[in-house]
Order: sequence, then C-alpha cells, then structure tokens
Amino acid sequence: MNIEQRNYVQVADIEIDPAQLEPYKAAVTRQIETAIRVEPGVLVLYAVSETDHPARIRVFEIYRDMEAYRSHLETAHFRDYKAVTENMVRSLKLVRTTPIMLGEQPR
Amino acid sequence: MNIEQRNYVQVADIEIDPAQLEPYKAAVTRQIETAIRVEPGVLVLYAVSETDHPARIRVFEIYRDMEAYRSHLETAHFRDYKAVTENMVRSLKLVRTTPIMLGEQPR
Repeated sequence: MNIEQRNYVQVADIEIDPAQLEPYKAAVTRQIETAIRVEPGVLVLYAVSETDHPARIRVFEIYRDMEAYRSHLETAHFRDYKAVTENMVRSLKLVRTTPIMLGEQPR
Repeated sequence: MNIEQRNYVQVADIEIDPAQLEPYKAAVTRQIETAIRVEPGVLVLYAVSETDHPARIRVFEIYRDMEAYRSHLETAHFRDYKAVTENMVRSLKLVRTTPIMLGEQPR
C-alpha cells in the first residue's frame, strides 16, 4: 500500500470476557464485513486473537484519513457493534500510530 | 484478503532505544521493502510506531504459511536487519495470533 500522510492508522488492544469470546468474534466479524463493503474509506481492518491468550484481541486499522475514521464511528454497523459488545469487552486501548512502512504483496 | 487456515499471522511488539530510532526505522523499512519484493510468501509487513511513544513499534505480519515464515528468517536481508538492529532493540515480543477477520478493500 502506498503510505499517504493523510492515512489514519490505529491499533486496538482489546480484552474480552472469555465466556463471551465466540459472540464477540461473531460481532466483530460482522462489523468488519459491513464496514469494508459500504465504507470505501475503511482500507484495512485486521482482527486477530492471541493464540496463547485468545481473549486478547488486536485490531490493526487503516482509514483513508481522519474524516473516514470519524465517519466510521457514526455508522449504524459500528454503533450496533459497540452496543452488542459493550458487556463483552473488559478493556479497550486505542493506540494512534504513525506508519513507518506498510509493505504488502500487490493483489 | 481471503483468510487461509495455513496463513501464519504474528504481531511483534518492539521497544527501541529512543536515541537510535531513526536508524532503526531505516533498517526496518529496508528489510520490509526487500522481503516484499523477493519473497512472495511474505504477504503483509506493516510497521508502525505509537504516535505518543514513538520508540514503541508494532509490526503486523502475514505469511502465506509457516514454511514462508521459516524461510523468511533465513534470508540475507532478515539476518542483516537482525544484526544491524541488535543493539537498537531494548525488547522484542513475538505474539502468534489466530485471525478472526482480515478485512480490506480490494486493490
């Protein structure tokens, strides 16, 4: 991906109630599928779980720009995800980042 | 990206000596550029720095499979990166992950 200075890149570190991990994964999957489909400014949403601590989730997020990120927060699918997962999430840390190198195979 | 069960997905949490951040960034950029160009099994290497704590680096890594990851570790460019950055890195944690959803715009 060509790094653009305007890109908004963020990492989310999320800890889930282990008893609710499966419904959380379903909710975040649904949210990502919808965001990618209907929001062209949402470039990447990679959600993974730590293999040795599956309730620890990392999400790597690239938005076209700050405006695309702000707009994403106002969408129905994001608000629905936040409401559905509110009681599943034990902690959430959003970390704003500055890209050094975003390397990927051409697709 | 279509998630494949065989994909090897890892996050690296790296803390750099702040005095050596610029040469570290140059070395990791060079390593990623080369890996993406010459290793088709290296699918994604996204290196970012925490905006509020720039010496904290996160790298999100997707390899085609475990074999591609192992092969990457043996390349000259990766070995060179490790040697050059050895005294720049204060701590390194490699976290194996299990993908939940890898969403991205078609490119």
